[in-house]
This record gives sequence, C-alpha cells and structure tokens, in this order.
Amino acid sequence: MQRIAIDMDEVIADFLTKYVASYNEEFQATITKEQLMGLHLSEIVAEAHRSRLQEFMRDETFFSDLAVMPGSQEVIRKLMDRYEVFITTAAMEVPASFGAKYEWLGKHFPFIPHTHIVFCGDKSILNADFLIDDNARHFKHFRGEGILFTAPHNVHITGYRRVKNWEEVRQMFLAPGV
Amino acid sequence: MQRIAIDMDEVIADFLTKYVASYNEEFQATITKEQLMGLHLSEIVAEAHRSRLQEFMRDETFFSDLAVMPGSQEVIRKLMDRYEVFITTAAMEVPASFGAKYEWLGKHFPFIPHTHIVFCGDKSILNADFLIDDNARHFKHFRGEGILFTAPHNVHITGYRRVKNWEEVRQMFLAPGV
Repeated sequence: MQRIAIDMDEVIADFLTKYVASYNEEFQATITKEQLMGLHLSEIVAEAHRSRLQEFMRDETFFSDLAVMPGSQEVIRKLMDRYEVFITTAAMEVPASFGAKYEWLGKHFPFIPHTHIVFCGDKSILNADFLIDDNARHFKHFRGEGILFTAPHNVHITGYRRVKNWEEVRQMFLAPGV
Repeated sequence: MQRIAIDMDEVIADFLTKYVASYNEEFQATITKEQLMGLHLSEIVAEAHRSRLQEFMRDETFFSDLAVMPGSQEVIRKLMDRYEVFITTAAMEVPASFGAKYEWLGKHFPFIPHTHIVFCGDKSILNADFLIDDNARHFKHFRGEGILFTAPHNVHITGYRRVKNWEEVRQMFLAPGV
C-alpha cells in the first residue's frame, strides 16, 4: 500500500486566515490574502511587528481553533481506503503548539489513529511515497514525490505537481467518481 | 551520509528506574529490574494496579527528571560527526509527555537541533538507515536495520543485532579509538 504524508497548516488546517486576522486586529491593519501572493506575512509587515508574529504562534491556544480546510476530512477518509495516511507537521518549530495540534487532530480527524501522527522538523525523515505540503523546502531531500498544496506564499514556485484544493487531491489520488 | 534514528526511553533516558521506583513507593513493593527479565512491569504487578502504571506516564512531569543513560551524550556527539542523527520517540502514545520530552532533550542533548527530533507512533514512517530502539516491534516494518538496545523486557528477543550499552554503540558505529 502506498503511503501519503499530509501536512497540517495550510493543508488541512486554515492557519493563514487566523494569522492575518490576528495581525490586522492587533495593528488595525487591512492586509488581505491577495496581497500575500508569493510572500509570507512577515515579509510585508513593518519590521517592528515581526517579533509579534512569532508570538502569535507561541501562544499555546493559537492552533486550537483553526478552521478545517474544506473537503479535507472527506477526501482523507477516502484516501485511507487505498493508501496509508500519516499527518506530518513541522511542530518542532513551535513546541508550544504540541498539545493544541494533537487535540485539534483528535477533534477534527478522529479517524486518523495516533500512531499515524508525526511531529517533526526536517521532513526528509519521512518514509512515504508522497508528501502533500505547502512548503516546497520540505521536498528537496524527501525520498518520495512532493505535491505542492497551493497557498498564497507558494504561488510562484514551480517544479512540482500542484493541487489547489482537496477536490484536486481527490482527482489526483482517487479514481473518478470516488 | 548514513542516518541513525535513536529512541528515547530506555535508550538515552532511563525510564525504567523511575517507573519501578514509583511503583514500589506507592505500593510498598520491592520489585527489582532483575525480576523484569523478559517482562514488562505491567505483566508482574497485580491486575488492580495496572491502570495506575498508565497514570504514572500520563503525569506531565514524569518524563522531566529521568536520568541520562550513561555514555549516550558523549557517543551521540561523536556519531554526529559521521552520521545524521535523529531522536525518534513514540510520544504519541503519551501526549501528556510532549512538553517534558522536548524540554528534557533541550537540557541534556542541546547539541541536537530541534529539526532532528521526531515524535511519532508507528516508526515505519522513519526514513533512516538504522534505528536503535529497545522495542523490537518497531523494526518489523522499518526500512533500515533495527539495532536492539538491551533492556530487561527484551532480553529474550532474537533476530536483531544487539547493543547492551552506549560503549557497544560506539564500537558498532565508530572506528576503534574514536
């Protein structure tokens, strides 16, 4: 059975909406996702605000109420009939997120066994056939094929097969009509 | 560069000493490690006490003050000159341990970057050449070679190369005299 590793933030969890809203609220700003094409939020805010962005993520509760990316639950459930699925998140960058991320998965993806959750840093440690991720940097030393999940920051990146939503994941990995 | 994945409990962290001491203290018992040859503690205690063993590990602080296995720091530091080293622990079994395990590594193995720490469940997800672990169950679907680190519970297990301490890890992976 082939194995698919799936990232959390910007792939199954809508990190960016809350991240931008938190910034806008605190600094009375009006940044939109459209302004973030090809950029990270930290690249367009005032330099003095950048450390505050780090702090948002270090808040233990930040990750607890992220919205689920549309279609991800249904498609992953179906993928699990034909593939071995692991959820693989670079949580080591934000240790404060461990508990909230684990609970979020239990709440929204209770059908994924805890044995198939991985908190890591360098994703080259993953032994999988595919890695669906919004960060192409993880693909460089990954042993399988990286599938780039479209997010504003990665729209200009080329060199990988790309999916822009979960319907396209379904089309790529499951036969028509499944 | 070849890659070595290294387990935490019973390999770099002395889990068993505290586990047995905690049990003995609470139940005024006198169980020794010698009595645990080929067995897990849960197999020799009264059935009524087993759930308490689970509770020990669910205490967030249980893992915070485990002793470091003798020689592990020095040998891992030397391994890192010749191999890529990852610390890979089945922490998903005990989510309450996430924070304590991460802090313990930062305190005792500060030279291991956070990118090279993995909290997982099923270790077949690891892409490494070697896995040094006391639980042979992780070797079955592991893509590299499992090296069994001797612990009381695994003394009767055969079929794998075995090391009984960190001096033997040094001898297996590093040239004489290193």
